[in-house]
Amino acid sequence: MNRIQNLVEAAAYVDDLDRAEHFYRDVLGLPLLGKEAGRQVFFQVGDRAVLLLFLPESTLKGDHLPPHGARGPGHFALGIPAESLDSWRTRLSNFGVPVEHEESWPAGGHSLYFRDPAGNLVELVTPGIWNLPTGW
Amino acid sequence: MNRIQNLVEAAAYVDDLDRAEHFYRDVLGLPLLGKEAGRQVFFQVGDRAVLLLFLPESTLKGDHLPPHGARGPGHFALGIPAESLDSWRTRLSNFGVPVEHEESWPAGGHSLYFRDPAGNLVELVTPGIWNLPTGW
Repeated sequence: MNRIQNLVEAAAYVDDLDRAEHFYRDVLGLPLLGKEAGRQVFFQVGDRAVLLLFLPESTLKGDHLPPHGARGPGHFALGIPAESLDSWRTRLSNFGVPVEHEESWPAGGHSLYFRDPAGNLVELVTPGIWNLPTGW
Repeated sequence: MNRIQNLVEAAAYVDDLDRAEHFYRDVLGLPLLGKEAGRQVFFQVGDRAVLLLFLPESTLKGDHLPPHGARGPGHFALGIPAESLDSWRTRLSNFGVPVEHEESWPAGGHSLYFRDPAGNLVELVTPGIWNLPTGW
């Protein structure tokens, strides 16, 4: 059986790589994995995944890899411990990032929604939302 | 310290939810987590993540959740064991899904790139690519 094991990479598209780098590194605190001027900046998420941020006008051209690239606000969710919700609210506020919406999920878990500088809808979510074996 | 723990959800946007459901459930073999006609279909990825597929004309309107939705080919990567590469090539071929590109990465790992029915660039990748603590 060909079983897919995990979600290794998610991509979002941005209009300014420097602003994206500042936001994901300094505001969200993700470790920078690598970058290529005019094309991309990559961040590690936890122990097993990577968030890829691309300039779509670059990646839509294709190069050694097949073309991709989307326009409009994308979306993804990053897991945080339940006990850090309040400190995330404070941290986002300190960086001038408004929380656009909060949601408490039927199965458990609570989400904060806000925008990255490109307008992507970023979600921070505590465990319980999906009843997955590992908590989230 | 507010440390983000994991990548919980990635989203892609499609133009036909039924075709997306068939592709991700039957071709890729992901367990269906839930769906809402005219809006979304969700799949579990491994033990700790979820792939969200949305109709952007629905989610861009916003509802109880903030609006999001992108157009153009998105991208994400799903992890597979190294020993399943050949059987994935066979499986994709059996379903009439052409592999658009293969890539062997400098640090290790090998990727198959192909399109979902909406044109999103899907990648299956074996461990080694990022030197993450857990293999990928």
